[in-house]
Amino acid sequence: MSEQRILVTYLTQAQNLNKKAEAIAVGMTVGSWTDLPAAKKEALKPYLGEAVGAEVLETLENGDQRGLITVSYPIRNFTPDIPSLLTGIFGKLSMDGKIKLMNISLPDSMLGAFPGPKFGIDGLRGRLDAQNRPLLMSIFKSCLGLPFDDLKTQFRAQALGGVDLVKDDEIFFADDRAPFLDRIKAFKQIAIETEAETGKPVLYAANLTGPVHELNEKAKQAVEAGADCLLFNVLAFGFDALHRLAADPDVQVPIMAHPALAGAYYPSPDYGIATPLLLGTLMRIAGADLVLFPSPYGNVALDKKEALQLAQHLTDPLEGVRRSFPVPSAGIHPGLVPQLFADFGLDQIVNAGGGIHGHPGGATAGAKAFVAAIEAVTAGRTLDEAAAQSSELAIALEKWGGGR
Amino acid sequence: MSEQRILVTYLTQAQNLNKKAEAIAVGMTVGSWTDLPAAKKEALKPYLGEAVGAEVLETLENGDQRGLITVSYPIRNFTPDIPSLLTGIFGKLSMDGKIKLMNISLPDSMLGAFPGPKFGIDGLRGRLDAQNRPLLMSIFKSCLGLPFDDLKTQFRAQALGGVDLVKDDEIFFADDRAPFLDRIKAFKQIAIETEAETGKPVLYAANLTGPVHELNEKAKQAVEAGADCLLFNVLAFGFDALHRLAADPDVQVPIMAHPALAGAYYPSPDYGIATPLLLGTLMRIAGADLVLFPSPYGNVALDKKEALQLAQHLTDPLEGVRRSFPVPSAGIHPGLVPQLFADFGLDQIVNAGGGIHGHPGGATAGAKAFVAAIEAVTAGRTLDEAAAQSSELAIALEKWGGGR
Repeated sequence: MSEQRILVTYLTQAQNLNKKAEAIAVGMTVGSWTDLPAAKKEALKPYLGEAVGAEVLETLENGDQRGLITVSYPIRNFTPDIPSLLTGIFGKLSMDGKIKLMNISLPDSMLGAFPGPKFGIDGLRGRLDAQNRPLLMSIFKSCLGLPFDDLKTQFRAQALGGVDLVKDDEIFFADDRAPFLDRIKAFKQIAIETEAETGKPVLYAANLTGPVHELNEKAKQAVEAGADCLLFNVLAFGFDALHRLAADPDVQVPIMAHPALAGAYYPSPDYGIATPLLLGTLMRIAGADLVLFPSPYGNVALDKKEALQLAQHLTDPLEGVRRSFPVPSAGIHPGLVPQLFADFGLDQIVNAGGGIHGHPGGATAGAKAFVAAIEAVTAGRTLDEAAAQSSELAIALEKWGGGR
Repeated sequence: MSEQRILVTYLTQAQNLNKKAEAIAVGMTVGSWTDLPAAKKEALKPYLGEAVGAEVLETLENGDQRGLITVSYPIRNFTPDIPSLLTGIFGKLSMDGKIKLMNISLPDSMLGAFPGPKFGIDGLRGRLDAQNRPLLMSIFKSCLGLPFDDLKTQFRAQALGGVDLVKDDEIFFADDRAPFLDRIKAFKQIAIETEAETGKPVLYAANLTGPVHELNEKAKQAVEAGADCLLFNVLAFGFDALHRLAADPDVQVPIMAHPALAGAYYPSPDYGIATPLLLGTLMRIAGADLVLFPSPYGNVALDKKEALQLAQHLTDPLEGVRRSFPVPSAGIHPGLVPQLFADFGLDQIVNAGGGIHGHPGGATAGAKAFVAAIEAVTAGRTLDEAAAQSSELAIALEKWGGGR
């Protein structure tokens, strides 16, 4: 039976966590139970949630228990999509006092109904012919209001430095000066030119925006225009929009999930949805090939344990679901690459904005510094050793620190 | 100029709130400012955010200021949709420490680009021919797993009691036993029968579910099948899905927004999106004709000030945008009607589940008790006076209290 049920873990508090789990199991499914006549119980039993367990983490001053509870739900209660899932396990419950949605475990039969990434880590590596190393991505310094020519110049400079991907700013919706399909075509042409020069392909991730019910059509147009990758504000548009893009056989392009608005859900200890679930499991099953999330470095950062757990949720084996690339972002400079490598390993994308554009030698030099740092750590060499061969890296380490 | 900018208020903390406002104004728009060459400044100035003000509410132990800051954004930075709006004013900022999105004020030119409610309070009153009183809505006791006949019986019982609307459970996605279009047709037929008996029309709100890019098509089918109203889990599907339904001229039916998942955003004092904005302004401009939200009564309830503010955001004059019906929900019984009336006035929907089905005389009696209570308060009579004429109300007051 257990493979036909969804296991859901919540962090909450109550006088008695076991009783709270039981109340949720009934309240989120059949509504009432103990007062039902026996025939009704018989009929509704297949739809009833079940309290699986409770783990008390602490006893609060008022005597309440605070801890984790697990409830199982029959998959028959849901349609295989994230709106149904989230509404059914957390919809009204989210408004019921201190409760945070921590984790979900889906049975294989339900996992199979989600698209998952169309390309995933292996597919993206194949497209770039880049095995056995972290990939490198850079971000436009800014997009809003820039003349098209400035964006082209920026794109070329980043590409010449040897990055694997360049992505739009996520706030780039009003793009009249450099329209979506025109950007895709123009940057594709530049990518062909820079590849001829450097020998390295570069993919451009264009920000997919527009009316939610027309996104699939727009994505198809992007593919026809030669799009390499689509950036997508998943939380602003809803997980189901990602799901429908990933499930569409005509949208043959990797999708990069941006975490914009995620901070409205995850940081509170008492409310919301935990980061590894929100940006890990849900992004992956809905079909994100790459997932950006705040790095655990820098001033305001994701808790390191959560960031690592998130990356695991993206890359751990999951029946029939491809792995998504973790992209820890913000505060990344070349001196951090050994730390990134130690924390997130080979299968990650090193993603830099200021760490590339802020290089004293410009964006091309900034990208080259990262390429040298990534080559070094992948080969087991120190950054100082690599900096002896790369003046760009030496200058970056001088500016941002982090050598040895 | 000011009518071309969006005003956004945040609750946050920093060493210096004014400086934080300035950093946000730059960081969320052109990215950098002070180090730009003069020509670049000239070109980007029209896209630059501006710090409008800061109000210190308290000084924290570490010396930091906690308070409200206001930033203005040029409307040219956005496309007129909620994904662009939320990503542009709160996307990456939401992940930048303690910050909560409190309020948004849109210039008329941008308001005009949002659909707003297609019917609103006046349109819905017209459909029901119900002026000058709060409306009454009831909820199925539960939907999941029930045989179709049981749902029909429940619908009839509620309708016979004189409710204005009956709504599906919001968790009703897996509806094979009583499919969406079949329910709409069946309940329409029952509504015709009960209206012949009671003289009162009743509208059925069917839960609109399915792939997000196919919702408009499904809604049109619902309208063709005779749908009166659609229930919609706006936050699970994304605000833009509501926007596109409301903007679709072929979807001629009021939309009822359910607040499922809202608790993932609003309850933290430090993070997320404030209730009056999330369930008030955003729901209204995106096109919700009715908006459910947790009532300020009962055990776990919305803060009363926030609930009242939310209702104001739904009903205050807003250039060219119809008013949405506030539907304070949960914990409602007939004895609460005077309180509801005092708090939310005429233009509200009294919404009850347990307060109708839990009536000792059954759902029809439960609905009649509410009808009597609403008639009484609207006419300025006490519930005790009304209970002398209504045995159903007398019994309800006996059970739940709240007379006089």
